[in-house]
Amino acid sequence: MKKLINDPKNVVTEAVAGFAVAHPDLVRVSLDPIYIVRADAPVAGKVGIVSGGGSGHEPMHGGLVGVGMLDAAVPGAVFTSPTPDPILAATQAVDGGAGVLHIVKNYTGDVLNFETAADLALAEGIEVASVIINDDVAVKDSLYTAGRRGVAGTVLVEKIAGAAAERGDDLASVAAVAEKVNASVRSMGVALTPCVVPHAGKPSFTLADDEIEIGIGIHGEPGRERIKMEPADAIVDRLLGPILEDLPFASGDKVLLFVNGMGGTPQVELYVVFRRAAEALAEQGIDVTRTLVGNFTTSLEMQGMSISVLKLDDELTTLWDAPVATAALRWGR
Amino acid sequence: MKKLINDPKNVVTEAVAGFAVAHPDLVRVSLDPIYIVRADAPVAGKVGIVSGGGSGHEPMHGGLVGVGMLDAAVPGAVFTSPTPDPILAATQAVDGGAGVLHIVKNYTGDVLNFETAADLALAEGIEVASVIINDDVAVKDSLYTAGRRGVAGTVLVEKIAGAAAERGDDLASVAAVAEKVNASVRSMGVALTPCVVPHAGKPSFTLADDEIEIGIGIHGEPGRERIKMEPADAIVDRLLGPILEDLPFASGDKVLLFVNGMGGTPQVELYVVFRRAAEALAEQGIDVTRTLVGNFTTSLEMQGMSISVLKLDDELTTLWDAPVATAALRWGR
Repeated sequence: MKKLINDPKNVVTEAVAGFAVAHPDLVRVSLDPIYIVRADAPVAGKVGIVSGGGSGHEPMHGGLVGVGMLDAAVPGAVFTSPTPDPILAATQAVDGGAGVLHIVKNYTGDVLNFETAADLALAEGIEVASVIINDDVAVKDSLYTAGRRGVAGTVLVEKIAGAAAERGDDLASVAAVAEKVNASVRSMGVALTPCVVPHAGKPSFTLADDEIEIGIGIHGEPGRERIKMEPADAIVDRLLGPILEDLPFASGDKVLLFVNGMGGTPQVELYVVFRRAAEALAEQGIDVTRTLVGNFTTSLEMQGMSISVLKLDDELTTLWDAPVATAALRWGR
Repeated sequence: MKKLINDPKNVVTEAVAGFAVAHPDLVRVSLDPIYIVRADAPVAGKVGIVSGGGSGHEPMHGGLVGVGMLDAAVPGAVFTSPTPDPILAATQAVDGGAGVLHIVKNYTGDVLNFETAADLALAEGIEVASVIINDDVAVKDSLYTAGRRGVAGTVLVEKIAGAAAERGDDLASVAAVAEKVNASVRSMGVALTPCVVPHAGKPSFTLADDEIEIGIGIHGEPGRERIKMEPADAIVDRLLGPILEDLPFASGDKVLLFVNGMGGTPQVELYVVFRRAAEALAEQGIDVTRTLVGNFTTSLEMQGMSISVLKLDDELTTLWDAPVATAALRWGR
């Protein structure tokens, strides 16, 4: 294992400390318990939004903390849910008196620990709503999940819910728009290579030199099938089929098309993928009106990508276009 | 070789086509000859800025085209200089009557081809100035270079010169500030893994499972030495030493610290690196007043990173802070 780390057990703490030094205009951090909050937290009268989960998926979630998106991110150890304590501390740190929304990816540990933290916050008088994200159409029930997994669609939920909170929507409304995004987005991914969790020191699974995993999970959980390598266009079509059938998307829909890198994929490949995905949607009469391309929901150095398609209406489009200022995503300010 | 591509010879064209569909608000592209220009090019009365070079380093340069940065980027084949024709076409496309600046990384092919294109443009009445970037302190003379190589410092030159052009500086002034940034920035990188050029189909060099290359070039050119893997903090210190000695940087300096991912490095590692780099500069009394972290000058899927340190003064700081809207870098708008 070759990684730019010191002691594997200090990776997350050192990275969060580095993040704080790199982005003092955007965030503050706590290292014990470990969480990241926007620099001006808590914002009085604003719904606070907290997300989190295992580390190794950066920039999600720490890189998405800032004006117009998350108020706090709670990173666990790599690929390991954070415990209730830091989630509670982050919830308290961003409570501006209007309640707090927890955005939780659907993994058993995350769901349980956020639930416990929400109960503890409630006992202290902080109103908490929770939205569970489960956008991955690849498989139902998986290594760490009952039901579908939450993957890159989470980024879209966080952007849009963040914009709703920023403009002053109340907790029920912010939770409702987050639910609406989750209900309107579908995702599926592919892995070309596995990744190495620092404290494990070896690849989380193996793939032959000519094999890829269709429907991969963001922790390397098994997908739908393992196939021989194919041209990019064919792989894109394999992912888009199940995505489009599932909602289902239909001719005339306006959508946001999101091609997400898994961490180790050259950017040139992401745009080759984007080209075919946009073309395939056009062939079905689906209108790509908003786009996102890049490494947002990663699996350390895994090579691969996921495609997410979000059905837009005027409300979601307006919130998507609203100003945002985070380390990983910013525009309009 | 597993890559998300179709025919290797179409990678750049397909990626640029995808880039155009993904970012219609920011850019327009030409596919024959191949170049990317900002959506509103040419901007009358503004100095145009053109950069380019081999593909495989994305988001540099196409992802840096937009308001406040580059007017055009000219991508060659992967790791191969573009020919004079597309450089000339891009220069014509962004000529707003105030002249055009070519920002050229110091590789023999790039220097020659940009020079030829500049001569051709001049023959058509377009005034062209050129700045050669050579920020890499690792080695003098290399596989594709006489003198020092141009690496990630190029991104800083492009941001700052772009801001100067955007505010209306004339060609000589924009060229002068680009030269000043090049004279004030020093960089050095490390590779943990090689990368695979699509049309070659095999790694550009080999590294043992416990080896790293200190001073790597962005095309995998040899660096200063090949050593056994070390903790991140020790590697950072190995890079910062030559960087700081070279200018030299001194106690009391204000600097921009830029940790650049080579493409395949998990973001969590870049922040572990950033933490130590900032700490090491603080130990020497050097004040980090601006920061940049992320994949900007990549080598396909190479794992590794480079550190760049730019000495700032009020002028450079003001230009760094100016609004920018590109696919890879945006703030202030």
